[in-house]
Amino acid sequence: MAAPIEREREIDDLPKNPANHEALTPLWFLERAAVVQPRRPAVVHGSTTYTWAETYRRCRRLASALALRSIGHGCTVAVIAPNVPALYEAHFGVPMAGAVLNCINIRLNAQTIAFLLEHSSSKVVMADQEYFSLAEEALKIIADKHKKGTFQRPLMVVIGDENCDPNSLHVALRNGAVEYDKFLETGDPEFAWKPPKDEWQSIAIGYTSGTTSSPKGVVLHHRGAYLMALSAALVWGLNEGAVYLWTLPMFHCNGWCYTWSLAALFGTSICLRQVTTKAIYSAIANLGVTHFCAAPVVLNSLINAPPAEKILPLPRTVNVMTAGAAPPASLLASMSQQGFRVTHTYGLTETYGPSTICVWKPEWDLLPAETRARLHSRQGVRFIGLEGLDVVNQDTMVPVPADGKTIGEIVMRGNCVMKGYLKNPKANKEAFAGGWYHSGDLGVKHTDGYIEVKDRSKDIIISGGENISSLEVENLLYRHPAVLEVAVVARPDERWGESPCAFITLKPDAKAGKDEEAISVDIMKFCREKMPAYWVPKSVVFGPLPKTGTGKIQKNILRNKAKELGPVKKSRL
Amino acid sequence: MAAPIEREREIDDLPKNPANHEALTPLWFLERAAVVQPRRPAVVHGSTTYTWAETYRRCRRLASALALRSIGHGCTVAVIAPNVPALYEAHFGVPMAGAVLNCINIRLNAQTIAFLLEHSSSKVVMADQEYFSLAEEALKIIADKHKKGTFQRPLMVVIGDENCDPNSLHVALRNGAVEYDKFLETGDPEFAWKPPKDEWQSIAIGYTSGTTSSPKGVVLHHRGAYLMALSAALVWGLNEGAVYLWTLPMFHCNGWCYTWSLAALFGTSICLRQVTTKAIYSAIANLGVTHFCAAPVVLNSLINAPPAEKILPLPRTVNVMTAGAAPPASLLASMSQQGFRVTHTYGLTETYGPSTICVWKPEWDLLPAETRARLHSRQGVRFIGLEGLDVVNQDTMVPVPADGKTIGEIVMRGNCVMKGYLKNPKANKEAFAGGWYHSGDLGVKHTDGYIEVKDRSKDIIISGGENISSLEVENLLYRHPAVLEVAVVARPDERWGESPCAFITLKPDAKAGKDEEAISVDIMKFCREKMPAYWVPKSVVFGPLPKTGTGKIQKNILRNKAKELGPVKKSRL
Repeated sequence: MAAPIEREREIDDLPKNPANHEALTPLWFLERAAVVQPRRPAVVHGSTTYTWAETYRRCRRLASALALRSIGHGCTVAVIAPNVPALYEAHFGVPMAGAVLNCINIRLNAQTIAFLLEHSSSKVVMADQEYFSLAEEALKIIADKHKKGTFQRPLMVVIGDENCDPNSLHVALRNGAVEYDKFLETGDPEFAWKPPKDEWQSIAIGYTSGTTSSPKGVVLHHRGAYLMALSAALVWGLNEGAVYLWTLPMFHCNGWCYTWSLAALFGTSICLRQVTTKAIYSAIANLGVTHFCAAPVVLNSLINAPPAEKILPLPRTVNVMTAGAAPPASLLASMSQQGFRVTHTYGLTETYGPSTICVWKPEWDLLPAETRARLHSRQGVRFIGLEGLDVVNQDTMVPVPADGKTIGEIVMRGNCVMKGYLKNPKANKEAFAGGWYHSGDLGVKHTDGYIEVKDRSKDIIISGGENISSLEVENLLYRHPAVLEVAVVARPDERWGESPCAFITLKPDAKAGKDEEAISVDIMKFCREKMPAYWVPKSVVFGPLPKTGTGKIQKNILRNKAKELGPVKKSRL
Repeated sequence: MAAPIEREREIDDLPKNPANHEALTPLWFLERAAVVQPRRPAVVHGSTTYTWAETYRRCRRLASALALRSIGHGCTVAVIAPNVPALYEAHFGVPMAGAVLNCINIRLNAQTIAFLLEHSSSKVVMADQEYFSLAEEALKIIADKHKKGTFQRPLMVVIGDENCDPNSLHVALRNGAVEYDKFLETGDPEFAWKPPKDEWQSIAIGYTSGTTSSPKGVVLHHRGAYLMALSAALVWGLNEGAVYLWTLPMFHCNGWCYTWSLAALFGTSICLRQVTTKAIYSAIANLGVTHFCAAPVVLNSLINAPPAEKILPLPRTVNVMTAGAAPPASLLASMSQQGFRVTHTYGLTETYGPSTICVWKPEWDLLPAETRARLHSRQGVRFIGLEGLDVVNQDTMVPVPADGKTIGEIVMRGNCVMKGYLKNPKANKEAFAGGWYHSGDLGVKHTDGYIEVKDRSKDIIISGGENISSLEVENLLYRHPAVLEVAVVARPDERWGESPCAFITLKPDAKAGKDEEAISVDIMKFCREKMPAYWVPKSVVFGPLPKTGTGKIQKNILRNKAKELGPVKKSRL
């Protein structure tokens, strides 16, 4: 009031000090879990259970063992493993040493893994015993590429697993690898790890699976991992005492950061080496599972599992988070009927995993099932940890109107957007143009502000000047009783430029007594009833669909196949 | 692997940019709530309900109206109001203008409020109509102190409330104040507010109630408010759809940051002008309340309410967070029996409200009720948002052993520790000495790592060289059936230096047919059975206990009273 002007901002002048400012990092979550719930199970894998006290000690041993070998700030540690305890531990132990975690997709081939290891300059490779020979093969490719002497072989650690054939472990040990548990023994369980000095320090790198280009290394930082871990827990209602089943690979965006959320909430991780519908239903029945994440393809298998494998009714509500592709409305409805509470999210490796969520509104409970499923199949609104989400005109960057029709690019902004791509200034410039992260996905904004993905830019089919969303055509096709899986891509068309071509896997029982031509005719008829004429696929191809290691349908391969079929003739109209 | 050393840290070299780095602030929560749940009730006050869309528009109007009057970055806006919608809105509208919110305790006297307004250089005073004359009185004190001309009267806004006597509103308007809703009308509901450029920018100032010294202005920043809002929601299991009853004053540490958490989770705020047991039970029965926060004294009233006011069994589990003083074990047990799920926390204005929590462990469910209550009455472990919590020797700063016995000072460190005290370098130096925030509270660390407050430094009674925790003596006294409230302080003692003196309020029905002397004898006998001889109060005084505006028992007054009684004579032994 009487304050002279020069003193006005003194309320902002209080400086940071060690008592009131600390780098944000998810690593403290583990220390806290070990204090609060030392005896509660942290990680369960077959007959092995580690408590939070044990997990903390093991992670400190890992950090210490790495530090003793001069692996620290600026170094990258690669892990090639399915969902086993060592991979969970690496999410804490590696950054506790100051290093960056590089989780590698186990379904990649040696050539790609060689690229990843070299590109990330990984100094340590921890490989599950079943994937050790794959890792060796990748290293050989690198060694062959380099002249003798310039190639420094990384430290090789093999993760043994009593559930596997012991032979692969012996081979690894003979090759000079150190066994993971032996490696831990070289470390100090009381290791005085230090949090990062700067929360912008990198915590992990993850490579995009690259359906259309060579893999890009997405770098994440401690600040983002911390914020995403809390945000992802809050938007899902993941509370203390959750029992989380690892169907989603941890190497997929660090398990969408739930690796770290679970430590914040003392949740139990149930590891799953092989994701089968039987194993999922069994874990729900016997291990108290309350939550899991999975791509729609996994949910599809759960719904279409043989009745003998299913355990229905479920012993409790099981919360399922799905992302990666818009699940068809019919799938969402079936899951809900069986007692799964499905939360639909959407995101990318570049946004620490899912970063939009179709928040359920209580008033939707009163709507017809089909309307509910349609609303639910949208990608929704931003996570708490993301500060901006919009759909913009790709040329002008102006937001599209919220009309549910105008297609634009989905863009994000905020603290849960990656630090950038490693050694790729060109890609970074494009990705961050205009102050937004460009997802490359196309969508619309509905009148209620919820966004809906219409397609990856390259998946839009342009027919007679009209945009067709292949996803929408797929959604409708999924409602046909004979369709198990479907992907729709553009096929050259003499009259319209492009037209939709549907690749379909039929349900096993669909073919009984019918030939494919008859089914095809039936599907076309179904389509003509359900969709605008120009959406109806002009061609249908039956057979299994090609997929990436993470279960994504490889539309680029199908697009090539469609091209090889040659253009649709005018006469066919 | 083959990377030259100078390239090693390139994985950390990716710079911040507008797409991937944004100042942390709770203000985005409101924008998100308005997008996601525009029609869901945000704030309910009597017959008035504002949806999230309306609340967002009102807050933007407030920010705009302030900005039009050049109130922005570096300015402070004071609010003197009970829990009404305007106070909730101020938590967003004021910082959206870039200004700092100063919530003033309505129970303070004009002299203290004058000190606060002047010390914080508040440029605007928003006062509820019932407290407007109090605000005017405070301003007069400031004006009288200054020579004519040097005092710039702040902008006065009066918050009208249809639930109050209209006369006080008329008086305020005659005095030149602008009515709050009229003030909002001058602002733009689409105001393009800007988040802070720096998350370290101040968001709020709150004055400690100062039982022992003059009030200190605790400055909080956007980063801390954001982190605390998320952290406080997670540790309590506050999920989407929560209905929160405002029994805790919002002027008390910004409602322990739940003002902001509720926007992150679209929770509904139920305002409560007057906190009575009847109003609380009624809101639980009629408004769907799921959560509220309250000091133990409020819980005490709920348990001891007349049966006609109670609504039992509760229609749903009601989550109660308590802090401010250790609730006696007997109180925790009674609450739990009635169906309240009590969460016990502890913190200070300096730590954004509670920052430790007695996390409940599933295995405790199996213990006898008394053991459960004893474990539960401890202050526990750090919140997720706090990076460090310890109990240290006050001289050496060395952590005390986790033996449940050795008393030391409770210290905190991390992102949910205040920025500092305004214009008080000496207090800041002391508060942050040695890289920790010094709470001034004394406690022990138990073998399980949970801390327990034993006393404020000055409340420890030192008798014959032994430390006595007055809190522990109080805890035991609360178990006596005649005791409603009790405070134990040191009284000079000829033989032992000091001895415990108990000030007790008896339950209304306790005196029936007994004189105080008989009750006193009975209480002494009870004490001798329950506690070590040296703990037993040598003196008992009956009567009402003096309290601060926030309901804290004023032990300093009682300590003076005990001194006035003169020393306990040796002969009494």
